Formats: sequence, structure tokens, C-alpha cells
Amino acid sequence: MRGMTLAAQEASLPTGTARLIIAASEQDSNLYYATRFLAPDAFIYLRDSRASLLLMSDLELDRAKTQATVDEVLSYSVYEAKARADTGGACLQAGTAPTLIQTLSTLLRERQITRLLVPSDFPLSYADGLRQAGFQAEAQPNPYFPARLIKRQEEIDAITAAQRATETAVDEAVRLIASSRVKDDLLYAPGNGQGAPLTSERIKQIINLKLMEMGYVAQHTIIACGRQACDPHNEGSGPLRANQPIIMDVFPRSSSTRYFADMSRTIVKGRASDGQKRLYDLVREAQEMAIGRIKSGAEGQAIHEAIMALFDKAGCRTGLINGRMQGFFHGTGHGVGLDIHEAPRISRSGSRLETGHVVTVEPGLYYPEIGAVRLEDMVVVTETGCINLTQYPKVLEV
Amino acid sequence: MRGMTLAAQEASLPTGTARLIIAASEQDSNLYYATRFLAPDAFIYLRDSRASLLLMSDLELDRAKTQATVDEVLSYSVYEAKARADTGGACLQAGTAPTLIQTLSTLLRERQITRLLVPSDFPLSYADGLRQAGFQAEAQPNPYFPARLIKRQEEIDAITAAQRATETAVDEAVRLIASSRVKDDLLYAPGNGQGAPLTSERIKQIINLKLMEMGYVAQHTIIACGRQACDPHNEGSGPLRANQPIIMDVFPRSSSTRYFADMSRTIVKGRASDGQKRLYDLVREAQEMAIGRIKSGAEGQAIHEAIMALFDKAGCRTGLINGRMQGFFHGTGHGVGLDIHEAPRISRSGSRLETGHVVTVEPGLYYPEIGAVRLEDMVVVTETGCINLTQYPKVLEV
Repeated sequence: MRGMTLAAQEASLPTGTARLIIAASEQDSNLYYATRFLAPDAFIYLRDSRASLLLMSDLELDRAKTQATVDEVLSYSVYEAKARADTGGACLQAGTAPTLIQTLSTLLRERQITRLLVPSDFPLSYADGLRQAGFQAEAQPNPYFPARLIKRQEEIDAITAAQRATETAVDEAVRLIASSRVKDDLLYAPGNGQGAPLTSERIKQIINLKLMEMGYVAQHTIIACGRQACDPHNEGSGPLRANQPIIMDVFPRSSSTRYFADMSRTIVKGRASDGQKRLYDLVREAQEMAIGRIKSGAEGQAIHEAIMALFDKAGCRTGLINGRMQGFFHGTGHGVGLDIHEAPRISRSGSRLETGHVVTVEPGLYYPEIGAVRLEDMVVVTETGCINLTQYPKVLEV
Repeated sequence: MRGMTLAAQEASLPTGTARLIIAASEQDSNLYYATRFLAPDAFIYLRDSRASLLLMSDLELDRAKTQATVDEVLSYSVYEAKARADTGGACLQAGTAPTLIQTLSTLLRERQITRLLVPSDFPLSYADGLRQAGFQAEAQPNPYFPARLIKRQEEIDAITAAQRATETAVDEAVRLIASSRVKDDLLYAPGNGQGAPLTSERIKQIINLKLMEMGYVAQHTIIACGRQACDPHNEGSGPLRANQPIIMDVFPRSSSTRYFADMSRTIVKGRASDGQKRLYDLVREAQEMAIGRIKSGAEGQAIHEAIMALFDKAGCRTGLINGRMQGFFHGTGHGVGLDIHEAPRISRSGSRLETGHVVTVEPGLYYPEIGAVRLEDMVVVTETGCINLTQYPKVLEV
């Protein structure tokens, strides 16, 4: 057990009150943040003003004792046996084991805990069960652990390392596209053989394999060309084409630290049209303007609205055009950490930025008749401005 | 929109009652199952006896209309505007948008839905909000979609394809270990150079890269040697050693179909001890016995208990020994599909098996003083028995 990361913040919990999470830490970043212990199946985390503890299955007991950053690791099967004794078998059907709620209730009574502060996404069935058993279960506002937003230096280092890996992988793909040969508007890898044209799938594979070699897992990587790129979350498929914007959006997670990075670039193999160049320059201007406004105390909502205003003023309409969303119809940015999308947001519903937040800045413009452009950097907020964690250059034509 | 996968089952929902999921389908397999639409952020799925619908953000609206297997895709921002009109601004603070619950309530009233059947892991904060707004929200027992357990042929094909890829990747790793040179009990890749010894990390990378080349994402791959392997979920690290069991547990997910496979093998480079051979033969015997008992109507709990009894009879004790869990202290098997661990279970709390279930069969024995062995195949349950989807051989010494 490696110390008590959250101890300082939680010392003020009133007597009888505890934080409770029941989740699988491979899926739930709050639980991973609180325990630094990875497991594929749900387990119980409880923390009152005195201590943090885990209630673990036999399968995970020894590993949790070695790895988890909590004060105590208790055996679920021991408490299950206590629960069986508690209920005297009365509440149990013949041959069935006590339920998770019965077992947890035994632990809560032993610790004299009556009020449970749970995450907003706490499973309803467990909350109903606890309430029926006489406990208060109160969903907390997000973020459940406010400290998760304020990145410590080691967290910034982990995100920066993920960003460097992202740039290495994207660069390999950009260099291949730049050196490709064009025939009938399709791209072919350089070399002697004719081969098949370069596709979105092939470029994604190159990026994802390179990242995996470096210890990162990238999923849902976007390599979208032409009209596909006008749907911001279209991952892209089929042959890439010359003289059309290609949006590359890559956001891998470290298999060791579990932190993400996030970067988008837009490139054209060959010549961009004047309209595409204009979109690119506008998006870049908007991004620079937004980055210039980011500092501790700045409002995410105001920054987003400033970009909307800049695009409007330039004549770039946003909304339903010819039955399709066009213009700038996503948020300007989001927090990055143990989740790829986490608080704070720089958007319509954005909130105040603080020193230590790590956020993306990713304006985009999408017009099927012209093309799509998105540029995304990741910055860490400081007292006086921000530090851009992204070093990769922005070049439209390659 | 590609039809109504779940229509037949849901036609019997009473008037005024609907299923409701609010989740991100990249994380939530029930939502992906119902929509076959992948998105990184939460969206709303609603299904009553007449139709299924999605309420989607501007960002995902067009992509959902093209890809989601639902009857209607509605615009979240349109309903947000209706909610603003509904509340006449009274419930809203100046300048704030209607909440998700206010927006959803507007849709539910329009559709005359008052009772919501939600998954057991539905977020508590949304359930409390809906209840305060006058709706019934009832957590349903698992599985939320019972049909998810009964795999259709195309789902079995997807799982089988994932299993073939798993075997290809594991085979590459096994062949490297088999052909390695041993020096001072460490393994070295064949060839001229001396190089560094083979590690768990290197073997994991070989397997995960091979899988990614084939379109599969493997995370938490286990390559654990010696005492590390005695913790069943220890992923393994550092140099592999000759004459000690190495547990390999690989469970990738297809990036295209989203289905998993799962396989474990145990090998020894060099010579296994007599004790290790005995554990291997016992685990293999237990696995064959369990597979022999699997058929529609068989009880998962009884199969698990039969393995426990077999191990007990062979003198293999399970429990806390010298302060550490030893013996066979995990379940015999679990369902595999869109989640790596899903119903049904073959375990202490196992349930009845039915035709079309896909389950693992993975007994193991773990004794730090002797070694660890786990063998895992994946089978599909039939009327008269089961079909083993795993073709990879079981050989201890390589």
C-alpha cells in the first residue's frame, strides 16, 4: 500500500459519512484515481474521515494488498460470512449467498457509517438496495474528486509523454502521405511496386501499431478524408484522395500510467483549394486566440463564445444547412487525464479554468461543399496563461 | 437506420412504459447492442412498444442517422429548445440551458411515457432527477437485454474470428519462447546477438502488436511466470525463466465487430517439475470434465462445484495458506460477447446454461511452492453439449 493520495481532502468528512464507489477500476477512472489498482470486475471502495479501505474478492485480495493506495484491504468472503451470521440465514434463500448489499451493510454497520456519498454515475440498483437497507445514498455533483482536475507534476509528465508518443506516430503517417505518389487522385506508398492505394484503415493501423510499440493503446483513431471528415466523429474508411483535407485525430492511453493525450491535425496531399486554405487559416486564428485567452480564472464558456463570434464575423455560418449540421458544432475543448473527455469543458456549458487543468483547444469548421478542418492542441493552465504541451507543427499542404 | 434488432422482444412493453439508457456506447455494451452505434459521450436511448429512438447532440446527429439501428434519431438541441419553452424560463437560471433531465422530461411527456425501465447500473443522479420530475425509474435485473446472452450465428462467427486471431498471436509468442536459448535460467531470442533476455513485457508486445495488425485490441494481456502467475490477475513483468510455468491469458476485442475472445494456456520452457506436471494434468482433467457437462439446461453452479470436488479429492486444498490465497479461488467460467465478462457465470453464483451461450471454461490451480496452471477454452452451448471454439493445442513443455 503506497500511501493515501486523497487523505488530506477527506479528513473533513463528518462522522458516520463515507465516500463509496462500487465499480471495475479498468472502466471507472474515479476508482482508479483513488486506488491506483486495476481490476476487470467490480469491487468496493469506502473512505471515511479516518481511513480508506477496499473489500476485495479472494481472486484480487493479495494483488490489492500489494498494489492499492489505500489503508486497508479486507476480504469480501470474510464479510460475506459475517453477513450470513448477521442475518441468521433469515433473509437468505436456502443455499444462496448473501447479496453484495447484505455483505456491504455488515461492513457499514461495523464501521458505524450511515450516510454514503456516491458518484453521480453510481449504479441505481445498488443505491436502491442501500436505501432499502436504511442507509442514505447521495449522488455527488461532478467532479466526484475535484482534485482529479488539478494535475500534479507527475500527471502532467505522464500526459506530456503520451503527447510525445502521439506526435511520433502521427509524424510517421504524415511522412508516408507526404512521400506518396498520386495517380488518378489516389495515393500510393512510395517505392517500386504498384500496390493498393493508401486507405484510412492503413494509416490508422500505422499510427496505432507505432503507439502500441511505445506502450500506448489508441482506439477510434480518426483518419477521415473529404466529405467523411465533415462528420467530426467519423473515423474514416477507404482510399485517401489527393487535394482534399484529411483530418487526423489521435488520442492514445498509456498502458502503464493510464493517462491520455489528444491531438488533431488537418493535412492535404497536393494542393488545397482557396476555400480550404481560408478555413484552415480561420481555424488556426481561432485556436491561437483561444489559447491566448486561457489562464487561471478564464471562463470556458466565454472562450467558446469568442470562437463562435470570430467564425460568425468571418461569415462562417453554423447550423442546419441543406439538412446537415455545418460550421462549428462541437465544443472548443475538454479536460484530458485518466479519461479522454473529463472536466472542465471549454464549450457552451464550459466552466472556470484553474491552474493545473489540462485541456484541449480544438476549433473546427465543416462544410461538405468546401472541406473540413480541425486543429487540436493540449495545454496546461497556469496563473498567467498556459503551456502548450503540443509541439507538432501545423502545415496544411504536404 | 438498419432495422429493429430488438423490436420483437419489446413489442410487449405496456403503454406508457419504456426502456431508457443514458450512457456512452463506447463504454456501455447494452447501449451498443441496442443501437450498433459507437460514440464516446453519453446519449439517450428510449424504446417503447412502438419504436426506438435516440436523442443526439448536434455533433453526432448525422452519423447516428446513418449508422444507428433505431427507428428515429431526434435532435437534442431541438428538445432543449422545447424544454426552454416548456419551463418558460421559470426553472432556469438566467443564461443557463435546460438540464439533461429537463430536456428528456419534455420528450417523455410528448410521448406520454411515465415509467422507465433502466439498467441496474443506470446513473443514480439521473434516476433521482427523473423521480423528482415525477417519473418512475425502475432498475431492471441483469441481464438488461436477455437476448444478448443467446448469440446469433453472426455473433458466434465474430467471436470465433477473434479466437482464431488470438491463437495466431499466441502461437507466434509460443514459437519464440520454444526456440529461445536458455542461459542461467533466462531465455534469449534465437539468433546471433546476445541481446537482452525475453521478458513478460516483450511477449505481451509481440502478442498485442500481432493482434492489432489483424484488427484487434488486446489490453491487460497476462504473461506471468513463476510466482507472479500465482496471482491470477497479475499481468507479469520482467525476465521469463526456464523450467517454470508461464501463464498466457489473452482476450482481445475486435475493433470492427466489438466482440471479444478469451484463451489461456500454460507453458514451461524446458522441463516442468513432477508437481507442475501433476497440476497441469489435474487442471486439464477438470476442464475436460466441465466441458463434458456443458449443455443446455446444465447448472453453472453445479459444474463449478464438480471441479472444486475434483480438486479436493486430488488433495489440492483451496483457501488461505501461509497468509495467501492458494488452490482454485476464481470462477470456472464467464460469458463472452460484447463484454469480456458477461452473464452467464460458471461459478459459486453460476446460473443455468442455455443453447447459444458462449462461455469460457478456465479452471486453474495456484501454489507458490509448486507453480500455477490455468487452461481456458471458450465454448458455445448446444442442446446436446457444446462446441469448443478453441483449436489451440495444450502442451506444457515447449
